[in-house]
Formats: sequence, C-alpha cells, structure tokens
Amino acid sequence: MPNRRLDVLAIGNAIVDVIADADDAFLDQWGMHKGAMRLVDEADAMRLYAAMPPGRELSGGSAANTVAGIASLGLAGGFVGQVADDQLGEIFAHDIHSLGVEFDTPPRSAIGATARCLILVTPDAQRTMNTFLGAASRLNPEAVDPARVAEARIVYLEGYLWDPDEPRSAMMKAMNTAREAGTKIAFTLSDSFVVDRHRRELWDLFEQKRIDILFANLAEIMSLAEHDSADDAALSVAALVPTVVVTRSEQGAFALSRGERAEVPAEPIRSLVDTTGAGDLFAAGFLAGEARGLGLERSLRLGAIAAAEVIQHYGARPETELRALVGNLLA
Amino acid sequence: MPNRRLDVLAIGNAIVDVIADADDAFLDQWGMHKGAMRLVDEADAMRLYAAMPPGRELSGGSAANTVAGIASLGLAGGFVGQVADDQLGEIFAHDIHSLGVEFDTPPRSAIGATARCLILVTPDAQRTMNTFLGAASRLNPEAVDPARVAEARIVYLEGYLWDPDEPRSAMMKAMNTAREAGTKIAFTLSDSFVVDRHRRELWDLFEQKRIDILFANLAEIMSLAEHDSADDAALSVAALVPTVVVTRSEQGAFALSRGERAEVPAEPIRSLVDTTGAGDLFAAGFLAGEARGLGLERSLRLGAIAAAEVIQHYGARPETELRALVGNLLA
Repeated sequence: MPNRRLDVLAIGNAIVDVIADADDAFLDQWGMHKGAMRLVDEADAMRLYAAMPPGRELSGGSAANTVAGIASLGLAGGFVGQVADDQLGEIFAHDIHSLGVEFDTPPRSAIGATARCLILVTPDAQRTMNTFLGAASRLNPEAVDPARVAEARIVYLEGYLWDPDEPRSAMMKAMNTAREAGTKIAFTLSDSFVVDRHRRELWDLFEQKRIDILFANLAEIMSLAEHDSADDAALSVAALVPTVVVTRSEQGAFALSRGERAEVPAEPIRSLVDTTGAGDLFAAGFLAGEARGLGLERSLRLGAIAAAEVIQHYGARPETELRALVGNLLA
Repeated sequence: MPNRRLDVLAIGNAIVDVIADADDAFLDQWGMHKGAMRLVDEADAMRLYAAMPPGRELSGGSAANTVAGIASLGLAGGFVGQVADDQLGEIFAHDIHSLGVEFDTPPRSAIGATARCLILVTPDAQRTMNTFLGAASRLNPEAVDPARVAEARIVYLEGYLWDPDEPRSAMMKAMNTAREAGTKIAFTLSDSFVVDRHRRELWDLFEQKRIDILFANLAEIMSLAEHDSADDAALSVAALVPTVVVTRSEQGAFALSRGERAEVPAEPIRSLVDTTGAGDLFAAGFLAGEARGLGLERSLRLGAIAAAEVIQHYGARPETELRALVGNLLA
C-alpha cells in the first residue's frame, strides 16, 4: 500500500490570466461566446490584447486553480504543467509554490511563451476566455512521474488538456499509472466546446472505466449526453462513471454516486464580481471532501463554499484561507 | 505660443507592481519600514519574491499612475519611462496605451529586466514597497523629446528618479526644456527616504526656481524642512516654490499658492483596501484642476476624489472612470 503523501495531484495547463473588464458589445465585436473558452494563436492573442483595457495578471489554469484551493483548504497538493523559461513562467511557479503546492515540472525554452488566458469580465460577472496555450501545449508524458501519481490519493485532470496532442498523451499516461497504483482518477470536462470537440473519445474513457469522478457544469453535461435535461444526462453518464458532480451556478450543485443522489444550494454571497474559477474551486472543495472520505453531501458543501469565495473578487484563486471558511466541515 | 496638445507629460519609473498581503511580522523579519519604498537589487528582489505569498501583477510606477489618473479624468496625458524588451515591459506598455496615454519610449534590451515593485499590503491597508529598478534606472536624456515637453501644459516628475544617475539627467533635461517652453514643472517628493538622500539638491532646485508645483505627504514635507510641523515646513518651502500641495492621508490635504491657502477633507470611502497609489492619484486630480485652471480648492477636491477611488481596491490605478466620479467639478 503506497504512502499517499499527496491528497490531490493535478495535471493541467500552467497559465497566467490577464483579466480585464469588457462589455457585451466588445465580446460580439470579437466574435466571442460569453462564458466559453476559445483557443487563440499568438498573433490573435496579441491583436486581442492590444484592444483590451488594462489588465490584472494573476496565476490561473483550471486544474492549477483547483490545487490552489486544495492547499488553501489545508490539504496536500501537487501540480504538473508546462511553463516556458520566461517572466510569466516565473510568476506562475512563484504563485503556486507560495501556496505550498509541489510543482517541479522544469521550465523549457524554445517551446513558445508561457500560456496566457485573456479573460474578459462582463458587468454580469461572467468571464469569457481566450487562451494562448504556448508552452502549456507542450506538456509531455515525461513530465508525469509515475511515483508521484502513486503517492496521490486522487489525480485530477482537466479536459482542456484534451485539445493538444502531447498533453493528451501525458493525461493517458497519468490515467494508466493511476489505475495501477490505486489512485482515484478525477476529470473535469472544462468547457462545452471541449466536450463537443471530443465527445466520442470522452465516452470511450467512461466505457473503459478510466474515470472515477467526473465534474461538469450544466452546459457540459448536456453537451456530453446531447440531452437537454441535465438530470437525465447525468444519469446516463453515472451508468459508467462512479461519481458524477454537476455544478449549476447560482442553483447550486448535485452529485450522483453509486445510486446515491445529493444536492446543495449555492452559498450566499455579498457581491458577485468575477465568476472565473468558480468551477475550479467547486472541484477543490469536493475533492478535499473525497480525499478525506467525508461523503457526498459534505463534499458538495465544501465545493459550494470554496466556489462562493472565489467569485467575490477578481481572479481564479482564493484570497481568503479556505480552511478557516469551512470550519468544522473539514474537521 | 506652442500648441498644448498634452495636459500632463509625466516622466517616471516604468514599473510593474507585484502586490501581496503580509503581516507586520513579515515586514519586521525583512527589515522593512512600513509605508516606505526601498530599492533592492535583483538578487534581493528574487529572495524576497520567493518568500512572498501569491501576487497580483498590475502596472504601476508613481508618475505612470498619475498619468493613468489624468487619462481616466478625460485629460490628455503622455508618459516617458524605460522598460526592457520583456513580458513585463509588454504588460506595462499595453496597460498605459490602453488608457489612451501617449507612451513611445522604445523598450531596450541588455539593460536589465523591466522594473518590478514588490508591494506588501498589511491588514491596515498600508503598502510597503521594495523596488527592483532594472531597466527603469537606465532612462536616459535621449528619451526626453524637447518637442513633446513643449506640447505639454505641465511636465510631472517623480522624486524616485532622483536616485539613479541617468534618469536624474533626463529629469534635468526635462526641467530645462520645460522652462524654455513655458511648460509648468510639477515634482513629487515620492518618499521621505528619497528626500533624506537628496535634501540639499532638492533645496537647490527650489532656490533655482526650477519647480512650480511641489507634492509632498506629511513625512516628506517634514523631512524636507527638517521640521516637525507640516504647516511650518510647507510655509518654508512655499517661500521658494509657487504651489505646495501637502497630502495628509485620512486628514485630507492642503495647498499653499502665492499667499493663498486651501484645504480639503479626505473623501468618505466604504472600505480601505490598499493605499498604494493614493498620493499618485491625488496628484492626478490636482494636476487636472491645474491644467484646466480651476483654482486651488477645486483642484484639491479633484485630488481627494481620485485618491479615494484608488485606495478602495488593490492596485495603484483607477478601476472606475474618474471622469464620471468627479461630475461637474471638471465641467
């Protein structure tokens, strides 16, 4: 029985977010789908950046935000992701290290710049993302250390990594290693357009029993099952995936696990500022509960509390120590 | 009579701020004076950065913040400052351009990295700054275009530039050019330790009638005059400098100008978050009033409103359009 030194080992895109305010007209003008993520190349990223208002730079990346939440909850987290040998790469590494997260994927040169996500926050607090993947798209299987995977209770993978080839291979390696080591495999669908691009392959993963915990929001679960009822869609996935968690924004979240169903409302908030990271932090709370074996409802509540913190300020990582916010829930 | 295309041309350090929360013990441990700025070399900056919590990166630089405020007030601003040919330099240039500020000092390579200011914000919202000047310290006189200076109503210079040699020469050139062109010269003392390092030279500038408008906070004006009464200190400076503006944090501000004295209280705020940029934005409001010839009291009120906006969020530049906040004051 391996020593489970890490609660969660997350594998994802190592990204620095550039967050600016914009109105709906700006999104329309640039052909963006509100609330979605799209990949842009370096030239498009530069064109868009030039048109954007002043930005706040904050470390991001979906799975990296989740593991930041894990650390903020007082659990042990590790991260695997590719940065370049540049200033944004240094910022990413600094920020995740300073949270106490293990991160030692070496920066590489000549693979493009560190990934940036240009995020437009509209007055309704929704975020619309334009990602230049750069170095992050060059994460390769060598970066995944089987010994590290075996030391984790849960390995957490982001669907965004399914787009580029090398990171997809790295994820496959992580899944294979995790199965052998008895490490649970959690996966987030990330974005409904990601689901749309890879629906067949995702179902193959489920059928091959490669996923233990699946995270989706409403748009993602409905796109996955091509079904306009989230409940029915979740049920159809739950036939293949032991635990399915569906987040529903201000309507809270529900989960299906081995015949059990649990549901929580959204946590009350004082003011909605920026929804960036809501799903990532929900996953953090839920995974913390899972790692500690706290049961479905308590894990969902931890998710709801973590998500509520992150949407009340700009940026996708907690600014308040989540451990203190959740109190006895994680005793 | 030259065409005054620019209301304010600011010359200062081109800096990206890295803002993180810290407690008083952290400041003590690192030997920092709360509320002050100190210069650090690259090695010290890296050591300190490694020990700091996760950061928010936001464009800063004292005079650059001021001209950001000028633009946010709807006036025409230009900036002169040196960045390197790197990612932080791109961020600095993007942010100031996106505000509509003229900035075309070419980035240079092989002069060190773009300047960073590591800012620790304590729970009392005070900011303590550790500046690695890098490329900013290599601003040289060639960057100051006499034609540009002549097109400005006011040239605004930051005391921080008095430390390194080349920028000091650039400021002297700007002052000489401004005098010839009939451009007003405004100067901010920046920091009481800067004053302490250059007290004699500063008084020489005043005696040579090189400064038309001087900005100081309480600590700076008292250090300048080596006097423990800010009023008396300001009076002694006002004998040589036509307009002296003294900011007093939550006690508001006063100004002395050609025998006249005016005073304003601080603007009410909802919550104090981060005082970074308070003095810079006060200067922006006051200079906007000066550029429009609005008189001492109205200019002070503009300063107080701009300062109040910036201390209610992280970062040293306005997040709300100041033009809308000041309403009829700047009609």
